[in-house]
Amino acid sequence: MSSTLDKKLQPPSGIITLLTDFGAADGFVAAMKGVILSIHPRAQIIDLTHDLAPQDIVAGEFLLSAHFKYFPTGAVHVAVVDPGVGTARKAIACFWQEHYFIAPDNGLLDFCIEESSCLAVHLTRREYWRTEVSNTFHGRDIFAPVAAHLAAGVPFHKLGEPVQLTARLRARKCRIENETLVGEIVYSDHFGNLITNISKTAFENFAGKSSFAIQLQEIIITAIQPSYGDAAVGELVALINSFDRLEIGLVQGNARTSLAIALGTPIIIKRGS
Amino acid sequence: MSSTLDKKLQPPSGIITLLTDFGAADGFVAAMKGVILSIHPRAQIIDLTHDLAPQDIVAGEFLLSAHFKYFPTGAVHVAVVDPGVGTARKAIACFWQEHYFIAPDNGLLDFCIEESSCLAVHLTRREYWRTEVSNTFHGRDIFAPVAAHLAAGVPFHKLGEPVQLTARLRARKCRIENETLVGEIVYSDHFGNLITNISKTAFENFAGKSSFAIQLQEIIITAIQPSYGDAAVGELVALINSFDRLEIGLVQGNARTSLAIALGTPIIIKRGS
Amino acid sequence: MSSTLDKKLQPPSGIITLLTDFGAADGFVAAMKGVILSIHPRAQIIDLTHDLAPQDIVAGEFLLSAHFKYFPTGAVHVAVVDPGVGTARKAIACFWQEHYFIAPDNGLLDFCIEESSCLAVHLTRREYWRTEVSNTFHGRDIFAPVAAHLAAGVPFHKLGEPVQLTARLRARKCRIENETLVGEIVYSDHFGNLITNISKTAFENFAGKSSFAIQLQEIIITAIQPSYGDAAVGELVALINSFDRLEIGLVQGNARTSLAIALGTPIIIKRGS
Repeated sequence: MSSTLDKKLQPPSGIITLLTDFGAADGFVAAMKGVILSIHPRAQIIDLTHDLAPQDIVAGEFLLSAHFKYFPTGAVHVAVVDPGVGTARKAIACFWQEHYFIAPDNGLLDFCIEESSCLAVHLTRREYWRTEVSNTFHGRDIFAPVAAHLAAGVPFHKLGEPVQLTARLRARKCRIENETLVGEIVYSDHFGNLITNISKTAFENFAGKSSFAIQLQEIIITAIQPSYGDAAVGELVALINSFDRLEIGLVQGNARTSLAIALGTPIIIKRGS
Repeated sequence: MSSTLDKKLQPPSGIITLLTDFGAADGFVAAMKGVILSIHPRAQIIDLTHDLAPQDIVAGEFLLSAHFKYFPTGAVHVAVVDPGVGTARKAIACFWQEHYFIAPDNGLLDFCIEESSCLAVHLTRREYWRTEVSNTFHGRDIFAPVAAHLAAGVPFHKLGEPVQLTARLRARKCRIENETLVGEIVYSDHFGNLITNISKTAFENFAGKSSFAIQLQEIIITAIQPSYGDAAVGELVALINSFDRLEIGLVQGNARTSLAIALGTPIIIKRGS
Repeated sequence: MSSTLDKKLQPPSGIITLLTDFGAADGFVAAMKGVILSIHPRAQIIDLTHDLAPQDIVAGEFLLSAHFKYFPTGAVHVAVVDPGVGTARKAIACFWQEHYFIAPDNGLLDFCIEESSCLAVHLTRREYWRTEVSNTFHGRDIFAPVAAHLAAGVPFHKLGEPVQLTARLRARKCRIENETLVGEIVYSDHFGNLITNISKTAFENFAGKSSFAIQLQEIIITAIQPSYGDAAVGELVALINSFDRLEIGLVQGNARTSLAIALGTPIIIKRGS
């Protein structure tokens, strides 16, 4: 990777998003913001989420891949869910779809690493870190300062050595088995809605214009609602959500707690007769 | 509504506040901020709250009406508690008391709609929305981009057609019945303090300089404390809070959980002998 | 204190941090931000935390002292945990280590008040407050506007009268007793890690190069791990955390709930034979 290449990269927008499993209570996120503003006083810092379950890399990868695209190109997205902090796991940065991503190399960035168009560097250049690096808080001491320097204009290729990365998590993809489409619940949001790994495209390619039955444990749903507002209060519905994913929800209720559905529960779609 | 009228409106401050029932965990709020910054990179975005109970329009209307006035005039306040998303319910914007408000037409803006000085438009101009509008997330696809365009200087009247709105929620107002002032608990804050719908003015007009008894279930309180610090730890007190509302609280404790008081519980004030 | 002295003070950075026990749900923090932006539209406001347990001055003082230093010098740090609001307790501002601090005089700023290099004023100048001051919400009506004026350039000495303060909380310091180092658990973070009042320096001065045994209730730990990633999942470890404090944690687990350890529990270190 050369400075010639950098000329083709998106110039930074000055926006930095933060996604962690730190919670908001302890001030860890604030310390990261203080470090960023010390380096780049004009940075605009947006919290993507800090409420991931501790060590939940799968959810972190899902939310980052779902939301980054609503930010201006050139945004720098920092993701820190880091059970391996202080060990030899790499710290990395990627450039993909005109956005920058910074994270430990543990699966958080699989959605771009799986794509051939993703450029990556191993973060090795200590001049862009805090002078003193703790063993337990690389969010503050490595990821935040690197993001600040990148957002302030330091060229991507200067952050470290080019590196070829491989996806760390077995991607949970839906599949067709014996004429049924098999997926699972991969995330449950604040409203208790159950989000599957079945995309709008996968669903429509499978179901076409025929009738269908969506099965989740003992529940069978045979229609897709345009929106929650189109169904009666208390009704269990299937719809294509704002992530373009098949989602199961309870109108004005909480499907996760009402149905006691765990993440990973299978969802099976059969074509009608 | 004409462009002449717009000249009389407050110029936008660049500040956008967000109030939702989305929670902070799922990144929905971050996606709204990304959309705003994509349109208006210099916007200053402030979270009013995202922790409303799902679908709690009453609490949303209360908090927005209580806090908006502390922001500079010309601020744009976005409120999204939207059980009817994707249905025919209108998306609206109002201008009142030199502030702008954007919300679904479901009661969230009743505090200004009840006032004759409120100007309103039905948001119909799709050029100010995201190109692709989902059925389930108008916060990101309609309300956020409209707010960004308004804060960036698009004239209010260009956002849609003038509309005459009516209040959606039966306003819960205190009333005098048989020489008693009757109100109810309408909100409980983080400290467990119980906030009533009885304003300082309503209380003082009723009680005047006479003695009084405030009754909440079996509890009788006969004095108004100047502040929590003026009473003993563990004492149950009545005071006029920072919203200029009558409030019942437990000094350094949680009145809601200690008394097991639900929202909607009546509070009755009688004049002394 | 004179204007000559002010010339030696750090010029304000425009950054204001907020630490409260208000929670994020009720909009109280948003009202403070609205007040700040009304006075200083270009302020950059960062949440340090709002999730302190109600009235928990000890945790507030700990978190503020731990995190303020990661912000640029000249930042204004506002701390509001204020059980005495509305009473005669003083509102104060301090200047220490090139940072500004604003809080009630109740122990929140003990970490700087204990230092002879701390300058302090009693906030008495009402022209820097909101015109109307409630009895219950000085965060919005006094602390926020004073912070905004200070961050906007009003000289420190103009905020009130110079005052000599004394620390309010008996500082919980570790001590050596009968050849053992005795400390306690003073904070537990989001991950359930248990943070002690034993600094890296105190630990190393005591243990030197000899072997040692760390005792927490019935648990004995005889090594310091470089990081959580260096130990097995489920192992209970001791390490020096990113605050340079001795910390006890459960690898990829929650030590606080697993061990049922309360704040204030003693931790005892003995030298090996």
